[in-house]
Amino acid sequence: MEWINGGVTAPAGFKAGGIHCGIRPNKTKYDLALIVSEKECSAAGLFTKNVVKAAPVYVSMNSLAVPKAKAIIANSGIANACAPHDMENALEMQRLTAEALQIDQQDVLIGSTGVIGVDLNVKSIEKGLPELIEKLTSDASGSDAAAKAIMTTDTVKKEKAVCFALGDATVRIGGISKGSGMIHPNMGTMLCYITSDVCIDASVLKEALKEVCDQTFNRISVDGDTSTNDSLLILANGMAGNEMITEKNADYETFKDALLQLCTALAREMAKDGEGAKHLITCRVHDCETEEKAEILAKSVIGSSLTKAAIFGCDANWGRVLCALGYSGESFDPLKTDISFSSAKGDIAVCKNGKGLAFDEEKAAEILKEDEVIIDISLHEGNEEVTCWGCDLTYDYVKINGDYRT
Amino acid sequence: MEWINGGVTAPAGFKAGGIHCGIRPNKTKYDLALIVSEKECSAAGLFTKNVVKAAPVYVSMNSLAVPKAKAIIANSGIANACAPHDMENALEMQRLTAEALQIDQQDVLIGSTGVIGVDLNVKSIEKGLPELIEKLTSDASGSDAAAKAIMTTDTVKKEKAVCFALGDATVRIGGISKGSGMIHPNMGTMLCYITSDVCIDASVLKEALKEVCDQTFNRISVDGDTSTNDSLLILANGMAGNEMITEKNADYETFKDALLQLCTALAREMAKDGEGAKHLITCRVHDCETEEKAEILAKSVIGSSLTKAAIFGCDANWGRVLCALGYSGESFDPLKTDISFSSAKGDIAVCKNGKGLAFDEEKAAEILKEDEVIIDISLHEGNEEVTCWGCDLTYDYVKINGDYRT
Repeated sequence: MEWINGGVTAPAGFKAGGIHCGIRPNKTKYDLALIVSEKECSAAGLFTKNVVKAAPVYVSMNSLAVPKAKAIIANSGIANACAPHDMENALEMQRLTAEALQIDQQDVLIGSTGVIGVDLNVKSIEKGLPELIEKLTSDASGSDAAAKAIMTTDTVKKEKAVCFALGDATVRIGGISKGSGMIHPNMGTMLCYITSDVCIDASVLKEALKEVCDQTFNRISVDGDTSTNDSLLILANGMAGNEMITEKNADYETFKDALLQLCTALAREMAKDGEGAKHLITCRVHDCETEEKAEILAKSVIGSSLTKAAIFGCDANWGRVLCALGYSGESFDPLKTDISFSSAKGDIAVCKNGKGLAFDEEKAAEILKEDEVIIDISLHEGNEEVTCWGCDLTYDYVKINGDYRT
Repeated sequence: MEWINGGVTAPAGFKAGGIHCGIRPNKTKYDLALIVSEKECSAAGLFTKNVVKAAPVYVSMNSLAVPKAKAIIANSGIANACAPHDMENALEMQRLTAEALQIDQQDVLIGSTGVIGVDLNVKSIEKGLPELIEKLTSDASGSDAAAKAIMTTDTVKKEKAVCFALGDATVRIGGISKGSGMIHPNMGTMLCYITSDVCIDASVLKEALKEVCDQTFNRISVDGDTSTNDSLLILANGMAGNEMITEKNADYETFKDALLQLCTALAREMAKDGEGAKHLITCRVHDCETEEKAEILAKSVIGSSLTKAAIFGCDANWGRVLCALGYSGESFDPLKTDISFSSAKGDIAVCKNGKGLAFDEEKAAEILKEDEVIIDISLHEGNEEVTCWGCDLTYDYVKINGDYRT
């Protein structure tokens, strides 16, 4: 497997683009993205588990009842959630895009991210569609523009692509995503759109997406607030010409592994670019009885406000890590638990068998000053290991989310 | 029922005191508290559910196997948790206190709050005990000193007392507590010690304490981090002379109601004085199917970092409230959900049937500028109602918990 350029336009037969259409007041900020496949795709999606779901989530879920699609349209600026005319506007956004592309309405998947409770101005989308379609390109610039158009308070564009061989065929997978951007008055919204030219049956594609999502996007947290709009979509148009994947064979595993690496890279970027974040926090739970338990424990650590604030302060405050493990709801033996911190600057053991070790505070602070900090926890009770990613809690997080309207 | 002065020394037969014994470097800060009853008490305790428990928690749980006690000793500065000699030091603290008071070791309950992972200097306690016992008094000044000695980063002392009639007898209940104080490098620790002169059987006392705790201390959150040291203890010495309460009769209900009001007042103060907090947030979920569900929903709202940051910014960001309800894990119909904000400055409806209402932003900001902000949520599905309390997320929270050691 190789990392390549081009994002969602790297796979054969995909075009993409992004423009400013007028949903946002700031004219220099793109707010409408479009991804289109030349051929009909096997399609799959995973959506927020929040009971309160945005209208575009329902519309895309409904369209995926038949797991085929040709296009994804998404706007930033307004989440189209809990607004007086949310569902009408979502359907209109889908209908207008299908009409402009001259494809079936059910073949268009949709997404929105931004302010909650405010009606989406679909007229802006209608007015912008001809320009957006005109600008669609299979060059890397198309994916670049689309990735920018879905950003909210993200500080970096998130875009990755890989290629690998399946038999004689070369297969590509590309993805764009947006993370912990929060735009007033709204909550974090994760959107991720993946394209591939792999030839794969839709039901198997969905299984691969689910397995990979559980190990990547479902293992990150910025602030514990699950959004109303989270959507992960994948389109696979089959143009790589590999033998169609219809079951979990060796080709499926090769594809799934490439998808896993792509999604891991995007998920890490999302955590690292969490609102206000200065540190990416990677928490690895080792030697655990089960994978499920290791995941709950690791998530409890990356979700702990106290641990997050300690990492912001470059403070090797392992007591907060042990405490967060303790209130996770899972049982384990604190007296068999070891904790260490590491980064590019080295590693340091801070807790052995549940008791504090004497350690060099200066060395610990040096290690924690790096952008990426790793917390390793060993439970000495089994063989399972899980990695989760989060970010630190900073003044800027409070500023971004507290200061906007008043 | 009447509010009275005197805290834990308000009930007949209790003395208390607090001193600086040397556990903390700052000589002006009290660090050792003692509460003693003239007569043997029915005693009950509730402790942290964290798998990682501090040594004093285990020692007190063990002593309460026989639900009798005469004294509570507690220190601040060091949590006596996860330290190399934590259990030995906890037992020694209990033994020394019993020896100095000339009572049975099992009759002494103990507590600690402060830094995790560091050994407690029991020598300081041994040295301080004669002075502390010398200073014990049944005046209000004794409770005042004890309340101050358990404070960590608390900014206000937390102390309440009530009296009420049971038959011909006048019964008093007093309590002191410490809240969201965090002292580096540590996690929030809640301690609450209650005294009463009520005459009550220990098993019934435990039931009252459990019922009340579930509706008060278990309904507050500052940052979602459950400490290793949380302890709620009650001593009832029977000196009020009421007819002994041995079952859940009318006297039990009268006592429980007074205890509920005392604990509600202490719990609210704890939330209001959460680390860095500028607002007390009261969240009331109305018209819910069950109490359990209403509590989970209200806790999800007061635990949401985004909602907490919005209230800090005086931003009527109801979308975050609805979102937090949505990811609570409970099911409800968003399209039947109403949300409003209120304070001493008035109230404002912001969401009706799950959709945003047009509202006066300036009026909303005025309402949210008050110290106590109430979020009312109505689900229109039943008759149960629950209130939970939290606080906002502020720069100071991050500062207190991030800046200490580096």
